[in-house]
Amino acid sequence: MSYGIESVPVELDPNSQAQKPRHAEFSRPKFLKLSNDDVEKGRDHFTREILYPGNGATKEPLPWNAGYAEVINAGKSDKNEDQSWIFAGVMISESGSKQLRPSKEYMGTSLAKREDSIAVVMFGVCDGHAGWGAALYVSKVLAVRISERLEAIKHFLFKSIETGSELIYKSPDKAYAPGDVIPTEMQETITTENLVTGVLEECFRELDDEIRRSLSTYDITGGCTCLVVLFMLGKVYVANAGDCRAILVRKKKQGGYCFEELSQDHNPITDRQRVQSIAYLQPELLGQYYGRLELERRARKKDVEKNEDGKPTRLLFRDAYMRGWARRDVTEENVNKIPMVIGRDKRARLLSTIGTTRGFGDHDLTCQSGMYIKPFMTSGPEITVYRLTEREHTPDDVIILASDGLWECLTNKEAVDSVSGTLAKFLVDDPMRYIQTAVELVRKARGESTARSWRTPNDEFASMDDISCFVIPVHQHMRAPKTLTSTAATAKRGADCSDFIDINAQVINFQTSNNSSEDLSQASDMNILIEFESSVQSLPVDESNV
Amino acid sequence: MSYGIESVPVELDPNSQAQKPRHAEFSRPKFLKLSNDDVEKGRDHFTREILYPGNGATKEPLPWNAGYAEVINAGKSDKNEDQSWIFAGVMISESGSKQLRPSKEYMGTSLAKREDSIAVVMFGVCDGHAGWGAALYVSKVLAVRISERLEAIKHFLFKSIETGSELIYKSPDKAYAPGDVIPTEMQETITTENLVTGVLEECFRELDDEIRRSLSTYDITGGCTCLVVLFMLGKVYVANAGDCRAILVRKKKQGGYCFEELSQDHNPITDRQRVQSIAYLQPELLGQYYGRLELERRARKKDVEKNEDGKPTRLLFRDAYMRGWARRDVTEENVNKIPMVIGRDKRARLLSTIGTTRGFGDHDLTCQSGMYIKPFMTSGPEITVYRLTEREHTPDDVIILASDGLWECLTNKEAVDSVSGTLAKFLVDDPMRYIQTAVELVRKARGESTARSWRTPNDEFASMDDISCFVIPVHQHMRAPKTLTSTAATAKRGADCSDFIDINAQVINFQTSNNSSEDLSQASDMNILIEFESSVQSLPVDESNV
Repeated sequence: MSYGIESVPVELDPNSQAQKPRHAEFSRPKFLKLSNDDVEKGRDHFTREILYPGNGATKEPLPWNAGYAEVINAGKSDKNEDQSWIFAGVMISESGSKQLRPSKEYMGTSLAKREDSIAVVMFGVCDGHAGWGAALYVSKVLAVRISERLEAIKHFLFKSIETGSELIYKSPDKAYAPGDVIPTEMQETITTENLVTGVLEECFRELDDEIRRSLSTYDITGGCTCLVVLFMLGKVYVANAGDCRAILVRKKKQGGYCFEELSQDHNPITDRQRVQSIAYLQPELLGQYYGRLELERRARKKDVEKNEDGKPTRLLFRDAYMRGWARRDVTEENVNKIPMVIGRDKRARLLSTIGTTRGFGDHDLTCQSGMYIKPFMTSGPEITVYRLTEREHTPDDVIILASDGLWECLTNKEAVDSVSGTLAKFLVDDPMRYIQTAVELVRKARGESTARSWRTPNDEFASMDDISCFVIPVHQHMRAPKTLTSTAATAKRGADCSDFIDINAQVINFQTSNNSSEDLSQASDMNILIEFESSVQSLPVDESNV
Repeated sequence: MSYGIESVPVELDPNSQAQKPRHAEFSRPKFLKLSNDDVEKGRDHFTREILYPGNGATKEPLPWNAGYAEVINAGKSDKNEDQSWIFAGVMISESGSKQLRPSKEYMGTSLAKREDSIAVVMFGVCDGHAGWGAALYVSKVLAVRISERLEAIKHFLFKSIETGSELIYKSPDKAYAPGDVIPTEMQETITTENLVTGVLEECFRELDDEIRRSLSTYDITGGCTCLVVLFMLGKVYVANAGDCRAILVRKKKQGGYCFEELSQDHNPITDRQRVQSIAYLQPELLGQYYGRLELERRARKKDVEKNEDGKPTRLLFRDAYMRGWARRDVTEENVNKIPMVIGRDKRARLLSTIGTTRGFGDHDLTCQSGMYIKPFMTSGPEITVYRLTEREHTPDDVIILASDGLWECLTNKEAVDSVSGTLAKFLVDDPMRYIQTAVELVRKARGESTARSWRTPNDEFASMDDISCFVIPVHQHMRAPKTLTSTAATAKRGADCSDFIDINAQVINFQTSNNSSEDLSQASDMNILIEFESSVQSLPVDESNV
């Protein structure tokens, strides 16, 4: 489990509770191309109709024919608080951009052959809670922030293609003799993979801060978890903050399927040591009702008072630094404290309030006793990197990326079985192959409506939560996504438009015009063309509150 | 990397700098049975003679014929600041103790057949720095503290043997329906393995606190890292705080050797995120000269001032929450700060001072600018558990447990090659087999003295540090160590002595007489017979300072 850490002072605008405009109208993912009728159907908590790209008004495939499906919750919130997004773009090298005039045909060929462009494809799922504001905001902005930061390091990336080495900095390979002075300058080895990892780590944290600052201007309700799967240069970077999950499902050569987890869930159980560590170092954050320790049972006043043997009761406990359990005398400070982590599995809660421990938003969230919860949460993601090029992948290898609504009802193994079963029913080039695989996963987790509740085929509780699920085939990862129409963007850029991809999702062209590749301080001034929803494009941040 | 954490207020007795008696006389491990001549030879920094059990005055094998060798440093400190220790004992069940009268023969047979006794064997290496006091203290006391705490949980351990289940607590297996109240009582599953892990975690931290408190009475110099390998009930528990290392070397069925790391080194590089996290949450601990961030180079005043483009310089940095690297504007607070972690590999230093980040002691250690270093260090160990019973082990499978003096010159692979080479030269029952394997490892790391310095066969710098190395065969793990004489202890216990093992190391008999197995609050009052060096046995703690 990564460090992540948190506990920044909660500095909210005193006017943050005042009535403010929404930062955007509620919507479902643009790439679904839903008609108004579809949107209405998808809002029904009783029928819980499954939405997918194929049942939208316009049938346009997702990148690599990726599959997707979603369903609303069974009534726990009015809106579907999950938000999914796709991003596809191409970075053009400084030198390449001068000559490059790619045609549509080019965009369909392998980018691996080209040294002057790098395809970037991202899939993301945000799972909102206590409102849909944060999830919508993150789904519209995070990819742009990531693309901006990738643009700022692209000369390193192109250089690594040119030189065939990912190394961008290596500490001097010197054998120190005893007595040598220790150098205070950096002694690290840095690769392009470290830089991309750093881009994701910084973007998550900066965007969360952006949300906090925006609260003085806009109503951005609740919080959200977020998982991003980024394909670039033969690698998959998975950045996770929360309890969405991505697994790689792979067909074995000898038959049968296996899987690898590409992320670890962050919840009060898995992230316990991090949240306890923060309370260990800043105990005042817990207030008077909560206690840092897990205890085998609630400690009572009489446990401290002398027992028959004249000694206090000893209880099993677990502290921040422990994976094991030990016994300790009950003291006054343990008495009647509610453990900061309670509950089991999906019912585990931090400060009796929230079931996830990482993500965006929640800046004003308090527990019943009035203490802020945000200092224990972090937007710091855990990054895993999977090297696609180390193995041959077939059209039967997919990444499942889904919100916890899916995973609370399906084990990884059950999801794999479902995927393999559906994939077998379709030809590899059927445009509905991965969509139906996603639909089937969602259907299994949602179950069917019965007189009592939503039940699985085994008559267990099915998921009452929002469910969102991508099924992404990975064998085409070195191909740029298929290009489609690009009227809007071309119109804006006019004759300067040298490269563009529109996959009916969020769209960006990475090419910059006057940006020296050496001068990273200019990154924020890049002339990036973003074809974006106007509600986000026009979102100002109140600088007085920065 | 485990959380560990730290930053307790440094509360030292104001008189701690006053002249106080040593807590014990300097000595080498008792199990070496060194004559005064041997001790003198071992102190010579110029010849650096290798000491091992076989060259001692008395030839008595270690448990399971384990191997051991040590050598002093090349002059960096007057004394050998490493301290190694062995502990062997048997826990007797409450019910069993009433009837059990084990003979010497019994002690040589497999304990796996007996349900009323549990063999406990520990090997430990402490690597001292800035004095030998802490290492000696820990080597004499830690095993006793661990055995006391094991005694306090033994009824769980015996119950697990009886029932065949390691489970001691299981949360109710209830399917929660949406809307159910979240229980605030413990919802965990706890096994005996969790308890033993907790014993080790607590003992490390408590002993470090014991050392801090003892400083008002005794002169306990410096600090030490520590690694404990504990064999019990078919498992190996490895508890590590610092940069000693244990690896399991295993001969493959198809020939050749492989290895598994049983511990992870803790140094300013591997433990960077933990120490940065503490500075992140308690920045005042760094003082004015140190900075939390790693930066690609020292930030200067002119980096903050406007560059030609009117903006500050952007430098690569890495913060507590990052595994990757990103760029950030240089700000005033970065200027001229020394990174809290500097240097590379074995030369990495925390606050320019210390090369390890976990261990015991160092309570009064400050860096040059006067800031305490202890708040960034932790005695919290990282525990790994290896299940010996999941695999068949042969006499060619060993655990190498050594101080960093060995590992700074030998890679794991080189150590494995050395081990396999030496083992092949001896019959499996040769009493010198594992000893010579340890000697050969130490010889390779120490190298040979040349005109210039100690050099390896490849003419590279050899280890100038103290080196201590156990080579422990694991195939006999279910056998109690061979029993030898037990005069001293028998004499003390008289007719009550029902069970005893003396392996010429530190010795303890776990049996208690009047202790209810249910009443753990009595644990500290146990009637434990400890045959111990008097210097430790009589060590009082100044209670006024507790």
